[in-house]
Amino acid sequence: MTDAHHAARREAVRETLRLEGKGAFVLLVRSVANVRYLTGFTGDSTALLLTDDRAIAVSDGRYTEQLARECPDVEPHIRPVGQPLMAGLGEVLSKLDPGPCAFEAAHLSVSEFDELRQAAGAQEFRPVAGWVERRRMIKDAGEIATIRAAIEIAEQAYRGVRVWLAAQSNPTEKELAEELEFAMRRLGSTAPPFPPIVAAGPNAALPHYRPDSAIACFDSDFLLIDWGATCAGYASDLTRMTTFQGKVSEKFASAYRAVLKAQERAIAAIRPGRLASEINREARAALEEDGLADAFTHGLGHGIGLEIHEQPFLGRMPDVPLQAGMVITIEPGIYLPGWGGIRIEDDLLVTESGAELLTQEPRELNASALDHTY
Amino acid sequence: MTDAHHAARREAVRETLRLEGKGAFVLLVRSVANVRYLTGFTGDSTALLLTDDRAIAVSDGRYTEQLARECPDVEPHIRPVGQPLMAGLGEVLSKLDPGPCAFEAAHLSVSEFDELRQAAGAQEFRPVAGWVERRRMIKDAGEIATIRAAIEIAEQAYRGVRVWLAAQSNPTEKELAEELEFAMRRLGSTAPPFPPIVAAGPNAALPHYRPDSAIACFDSDFLLIDWGATCAGYASDLTRMTTFQGKVSEKFASAYRAVLKAQERAIAAIRPGRLASEINREARAALEEDGLADAFTHGLGHGIGLEIHEQPFLGRMPDVPLQAGMVITIEPGIYLPGWGGIRIEDDLLVTESGAELLTQEPRELNASALDHTY
Repeated sequence: MTDAHHAARREAVRETLRLEGKGAFVLLVRSVANVRYLTGFTGDSTALLLTDDRAIAVSDGRYTEQLARECPDVEPHIRPVGQPLMAGLGEVLSKLDPGPCAFEAAHLSVSEFDELRQAAGAQEFRPVAGWVERRRMIKDAGEIATIRAAIEIAEQAYRGVRVWLAAQSNPTEKELAEELEFAMRRLGSTAPPFPPIVAAGPNAALPHYRPDSAIACFDSDFLLIDWGATCAGYASDLTRMTTFQGKVSEKFASAYRAVLKAQERAIAAIRPGRLASEINREARAALEEDGLADAFTHGLGHGIGLEIHEQPFLGRMPDVPLQAGMVITIEPGIYLPGWGGIRIEDDLLVTESGAELLTQEPRELNASALDHTY
Repeated sequence: MTDAHHAARREAVRETLRLEGKGAFVLLVRSVANVRYLTGFTGDSTALLLTDDRAIAVSDGRYTEQLARECPDVEPHIRPVGQPLMAGLGEVLSKLDPGPCAFEAAHLSVSEFDELRQAAGAQEFRPVAGWVERRRMIKDAGEIATIRAAIEIAEQAYRGVRVWLAAQSNPTEKELAEELEFAMRRLGSTAPPFPPIVAAGPNAALPHYRPDSAIACFDSDFLLIDWGATCAGYASDLTRMTTFQGKVSEKFASAYRAVLKAQERAIAAIRPGRLASEINREARAALEEDGLADAFTHGLGHGIGLEIHEQPFLGRMPDVPLQAGMVITIEPGIYLPGWGGIRIEDDLLVTESGAELLTQEPRELNASALDHTY
């Protein structure tokens, strides 16, 4: 991203301020991801004040040099040591021309808002929601290329780790997860958007399981692996099931086929204009046919970008119509306590005519069978 | 921690509710770390409602099994798929006996609070601050042992990586950071509390620098490494400077001695009853003697525990008197744009008579000199 990209994004948000701000003359951007999106600044503890002709990053002395490097076209305001962010924001606001201030209500806590009001004197405030997030839903060409790179890192690391896995006697879930993460980092990922999940057999019944250093992978018949990489701030997010040659039970195979069918049904339903919730219902209806809808205990997917979970959400609020340029996960899963779980997760780009699968790793049952003689 | 530990912590918070709740009959705990502290539950997206005789975890279907495993003595309330947390909390609250609800104002966003009020009908709310955090400042024996383990992992990994480093031709900052992180993970750390900072020479002028994959370590005269491990949820946090044999400039040596002197002065000043801000001023006064106070652009330190930055803060609000059982970092640093920076960071336990240094890694100038012939 160049400075010009960020400047154009700020211009678009200023347009929203003019059209929807109800008289607000400044927008306070507090979300770390939104600040990055609008400026290129990759640090934290920094908020952006955006007026019609100014962009001021209210930060602290730890970031003086980084701001100059990363967003030379944004005015820095460095708080003195010990001054909290809200006090600094209040001070800057009260020096600007008076007039209402729109703020990101999802990204200020109740107590921060209280501090801000105290510091800003007579300033009026107007809560607003999603002004930047809804722009971030639609990725530009550079963002899509970056997400593709994050997917490529994740997939290449996964393939490497499967070679590693086949050569191990019986590694633990945690060992496998660490290898996978380290492999992604060696391929250029910064800290992954979430720690890889490696869940053996029954542990796969917990959608947000964390790998255990006492559970040996090959003691179960299958593994669920959910992982992703971070490339230049952008996330990828995949889930695959690994089975071991000759150990695929009939129960596993039929459940796997049901989840895959649900995923394919959902993917086939994607096109601009359809509501995110409709795609979710499509997958749920497919699982219903196999009596597995009750075991599908989460939403179908979410946008990925500067955050690992961002709008649009497929199966929770806010519901939005899909649009070309959105990058989303489709990840139906079923969870059967005591037995385990199956989830298949891919990343897709919504196109003018449907969806493009960005992930390449095969999904067919047994495509992931590890030829391991353990 | 056993269930009994968590139950005792909840009992103590109930006491606060009775004494300071101004008639509130239930406390809504939203902070992930506070929920973990009071229940043992290690997931997220879950809030705790604490009444005089009930403890209800409002969560979702992804966590049904994990709640049963991790906190069997807490009542689970599983929200239906698609119901946001605030709606679920509002529903549970409105089914409980009526009466005001205290909530953690620092951990609900303005928009969440709005959703909660809409969902909870006639429920009254009272913002409260720091009820759980101020208890978390004082670590019990189990927590101190866990932090010691997190420090041991970090130090052992650092020593291992220095051996690795000496055998490299000229690794990049990012390669070194990845090795250090992977080494900590192999020693039992889960995801570190922050990605290790490895900053060569001039890059050390940025206190929150991120390692670069294009910067070779041995092209500079020194490295700043800031890292920590996570053990059973608890963080450690250290910073050391590495120099290369024969490359210590007079400027580096004198600045290093000034920072070390400031750190020692601050450590010597620690004892129960002194304000956190006084210890910060002690370090600042020491740097002032060397004309370096302006280059010290952040606070002196912070508590560590379930969060990497928690109360008490030495140099920002809220200011508190130190108490035995607090575990804090002392990390003076100076940053000279263009030249680099020096920071020395150790973890200490506040004791009845002063402070116990928990970190063991030597701090003397040249203790960290790497005998590298590059």
